[in-house]
Amino acid sequence: MDNFKVIFHIDEQNKAGLVLHNISNLIADLGEENLNIEMVANSEAVKMLVRNTNVFETALKELAEKKVVLCACANAMRDLGIQKEELLDFVTVVSAGVGEIVKKQVEGWVYIRP
Amino acid sequence: MDNFKVIFHIDEQNKAGLVLHNISNLIADLGEENLNIEMVANSEAVKMLVRNTNVFETALKELAEKKVVLCACANAMRDLGIQKEELLDFVTVVSAGVGEIVKKQVEGWVYIRP
Amino acid sequence: MDNFKVIFHIDEQNKAGLVLHNISNLIADLGEENLNIEMVANSEAVKMLVRNTNVFETALKELAEKKVVLCACANAMRDLGIQKEELLDFVTVVSAGVGEIVKKQVEGWVYIRP
Repeated sequence: MDNFKVIFHIDEQNKAGLVLHNISNLIADLGEENLNIEMVANSEAVKMLVRNTNVFETALKELAEKKVVLCACANAMRDLGIQKEELLDFVTVVSAGVGEIVKKQVEGWVYIRP
Repeated sequence: MDNFKVIFHIDEQNKAGLVLHNISNLIADLGEENLNIEMVANSEAVKMLVRNTNVFETALKELAEKKVVLCACANAMRDLGIQKEELLDFVTVVSAGVGEIVKKQVEGWVYIRP
Repeated sequence: MDNFKVIFHIDEQNKAGLVLHNISNLIADLGEENLNIEMVANSEAVKMLVRNTNVFETALKELAEKKVVLCACANAMRDLGIQKEELLDFVTVVSAGVGEIVKKQVEGWVYIRP
């Protein structure tokens, strides 16, 4: 069976619900066992990964339990004054969101930008 | 001559005019005979593929006649309560819009997200 | 060292600041010597490449000096009535923005759409 490697890019906070819905639908369509998924949030979209008062926490946690890697861009965190400790436990910080997306694509991951 | 395989992704209804204009311009630039084009509409953008009161119907039909494959996401149709019979005749329904885009990219199609 | 080839796509004028910020961050992250970067502006986003009263001129010039290729789509220029002479000196005009992005991806460039 093919193993699909997919990177989702989000930089608009109002796309948070759509991106999470897209990822769930993709897992339902192609099967968790056939997928490696990473979501990279940069710019204002890193706010969707902050703890507390986060309406997406349950959906994010479910995806993390399905091995979806959820990344926050350190440049955006610095711009917005967000500390690592403020992020949900299961979030990974990457030095530059766009750099991460470039490197993943060079390694053969496909890019989706909802 | 190279054969270019291009997948367009639209999930915002207000991008409908732009996407169709982009596709027409691409055909004019690279030549219909050198192109395979597919457009995948998911989320609210599936509405642009519904029959009647559709200001894009003429433009969509012209693209379909140029062998552009126009796809609607079945997940989005279910979310929005749209039946297959309500779509324009020449529209193809895919089980998951994002899954379709992933599979096409793995097969070597390039991705454009206007 | 790997040489990364990255094409940025912008068609929304209000994304101009974000795209330029993304490109600067990418250069800081991966190193100017390891990168080939091209930005393609089409639709209304070509306005960000017009001379005078352009708040982005300094940032654009800095990127041009770092060998970032800045392209304007000729179709969009025609639609908006913008002449080549009105563009910043260091801007390259391409016949079709989307065609340029397709050809670059076929040559192995990775695509980022902020």
